[in-house]
Amino acid sequence: MISVSDALDTLLDLVSPMAAETVPLRAAAGRVLAEPVSAKRDQPPFAASAMDGYALKSAEVEKDAMFKVIGESAAGHGFTGRVGAGQAVRIFTGAPIPEGADFVVIQEDISRSGNLITIANHPGTSTNIRPKGGDFQIGTTIDAPRVLGSADIALLAAMNIAQVPVRKQPTVALISTGDELVLPGDTPGPDQIIASNTFGLDALLTAAGARVRILPIARDTESDLRTAFELAQDADLIVTIGGASVGDHDLVAGVTETLGMSRAFYKVAMRPGKPLMAGTLGQSAMVGLPGNPVSAMVCGHIFILPMLRAMLGLATDTPALLTAPLAHPVSENGPRQHYMRGRFDGQSVHVFDDQDSARLTLLAEANVLVVRPPKDGARATGERVNYLPI
Amino acid sequence: MISVSDALDTLLDLVSPMAAETVPLRAAAGRVLAEPVSAKRDQPPFAASAMDGYALKSAEVEKDAMFKVIGESAAGHGFTGRVGAGQAVRIFTGAPIPEGADFVVIQEDISRSGNLITIANHPGTSTNIRPKGGDFQIGTTIDAPRVLGSADIALLAAMNIAQVPVRKQPTVALISTGDELVLPGDTPGPDQIIASNTFGLDALLTAAGARVRILPIARDTESDLRTAFELAQDADLIVTIGGASVGDHDLVAGVTETLGMSRAFYKVAMRPGKPLMAGTLGQSAMVGLPGNPVSAMVCGHIFILPMLRAMLGLATDTPALLTAPLAHPVSENGPRQHYMRGRFDGQSVHVFDDQDSARLTLLAEANVLVVRPPKDGARATGERVNYLPI
Repeated sequence: MISVSDALDTLLDLVSPMAAETVPLRAAAGRVLAEPVSAKRDQPPFAASAMDGYALKSAEVEKDAMFKVIGESAAGHGFTGRVGAGQAVRIFTGAPIPEGADFVVIQEDISRSGNLITIANHPGTSTNIRPKGGDFQIGTTIDAPRVLGSADIALLAAMNIAQVPVRKQPTVALISTGDELVLPGDTPGPDQIIASNTFGLDALLTAAGARVRILPIARDTESDLRTAFELAQDADLIVTIGGASVGDHDLVAGVTETLGMSRAFYKVAMRPGKPLMAGTLGQSAMVGLPGNPVSAMVCGHIFILPMLRAMLGLATDTPALLTAPLAHPVSENGPRQHYMRGRFDGQSVHVFDDQDSARLTLLAEANVLVVRPPKDGARATGERVNYLPI
Repeated sequence: MISVSDALDTLLDLVSPMAAETVPLRAAAGRVLAEPVSAKRDQPPFAASAMDGYALKSAEVEKDAMFKVIGESAAGHGFTGRVGAGQAVRIFTGAPIPEGADFVVIQEDISRSGNLITIANHPGTSTNIRPKGGDFQIGTTIDAPRVLGSADIALLAAMNIAQVPVRKQPTVALISTGDELVLPGDTPGPDQIIASNTFGLDALLTAAGARVRILPIARDTESDLRTAFELAQDADLIVTIGGASVGDHDLVAGVTETLGMSRAFYKVAMRPGKPLMAGTLGQSAMVGLPGNPVSAMVCGHIFILPMLRAMLGLATDTPALLTAPLAHPVSENGPRQHYMRGRFDGQSVHVFDDQDSARLTLLAEANVLVVRPPKDGARATGERVNYLPI
């Protein structure tokens, strides 16, 4: 048996970052920036007022000073003249500071009568001016890689970057195998169950940025499996589910071998989800997951999501483990790394009593996988444990 | 000025849950379940083997006992006969337990010679059988409302629920106003900037489940704004950005008034983002956000996301605030609730020194908004503060 981290290293070696493509700004939300981009302008593009008020000369600012209002500077319509001694320009938030002015007295400190204003209260020392380029300047970069969130999209817009270089989305072909499987909506025979892994993994991988193709369920025959692999051959990643022990032989292994796949089997020291197969088939990376629903989904979190991150050019060296105190004691762990379903309630983490890998209901109730290293000792209430949010 | 929570209550009063619609399972990922759904079958649908091994009678299990193998039960192909005394059936994980058998000896504890097997090691007490309905039974429900994650989708599949009742996605029309704005990719004039709020809010609201329509930028004229509102009139929610103080008058307020909107203004005791307008226009709820980029995005998090949650039928009474210790001291807060940009590094939270509401770069760097209540006192390193992940 090999460790989870050795297995993951092997899987990550099978994939490489996707090429970049350019998409319109709006379509870049949630995508991964592929290369650094640079602002095409300064923000603000001019010295701008931070407040509604009057722009004038700072040297003339004192209580009871009077000024003549000679014009207005609004957002989109700056004042084109120059502010001289004893003069002021009505100005609004975001509007350009007119030439000759270097101070904005906020309107609350002004009394106005016709075109004359008086500084009624002593203004503070702030000029209320945002300097040109104060937020960013031409050439300021956003570094890659980076998952583009809503604030990044706003920032890219402000930088006038209308076309964004992002990593292509990896295509993933999902092949569920097994005579026992039928699709949701079908009527299963007495010995059959509904294919659930396919749909769960589809949702998981799609949310992580993959373009998922669900292939028809492959029956437990060589020809059915061969057809499925042919349909999958242009995918960046092929994921098979089940089929690793059909009767006494491994059907998926046999077929992939005849297709020329160099592959390896791994018994991974983990619970749930021990058996794993991996290799390369033509241009595609290929991973064979166990058919047990909870094992398949947990392996999706632990192995396939990091592979997608690698394909998207994101860092894979640090799993996003968090820590929280236990709400109750847990007993010692066995020799395999155990991913235990549980719930984090914002304060502490509850580990479910029942960890039967056939119980999908408990996976749906869980919002974390508590990660117990091999041979981790018993832990008391309040001890901090690592967990992966799911 | 009114408090943030009073403002939010007022906004939530403007919206109600969307109607339900039925979508195929695959399209239900990430959607909100609108009503409870019930399993259409038991899982497992039959008593099933939890291991690869041999099914036989528990009364006959003892070390060195011998059995004749009379058949095989594989996933999808159960054994149709009956297991009698001294008989065993080869069985694989997930396969139906044949009639007459009530125990599975795992294959590691068996030695086999032709059709004869011997129990070579003492089996444990576990029957290695998963009882029929052990995970869920016909009628087991998934409660609504619930955001459907990948494990839920797998569970719905296993329950054979191929069509899922979910809340319709609210349509949101975004109207940016201002003569100073141009779209990304355009060439701005000397007094102009790029519309960034529209694109940032689009990404934010889309990720939260809205169907966002970006309307053309409305110039600061009544006719342009009127056209924008006409284009928006079938949206569930209309969000305007900016236009609240154009020169000395409020253009959006004027136009919505002539369109018959009953509306109210709120000066909300918050930083950033003080001014807010809200009301109902025809069938649409309408919210007017400040034009400042950071204010607009923060108001999106604080006000618009909860409105979307309400429209999706989700709970809105408990904001998803987390707590973390401060990485450094912070000074006392003023009279308004302050949403301070900062970063949580997994251990503690850093609050940025510069909280200038014009600095979009700092919003993009932030992954949290630290929430400081009005008049919150100075806080020392290590004191826990509330934050909202963004």
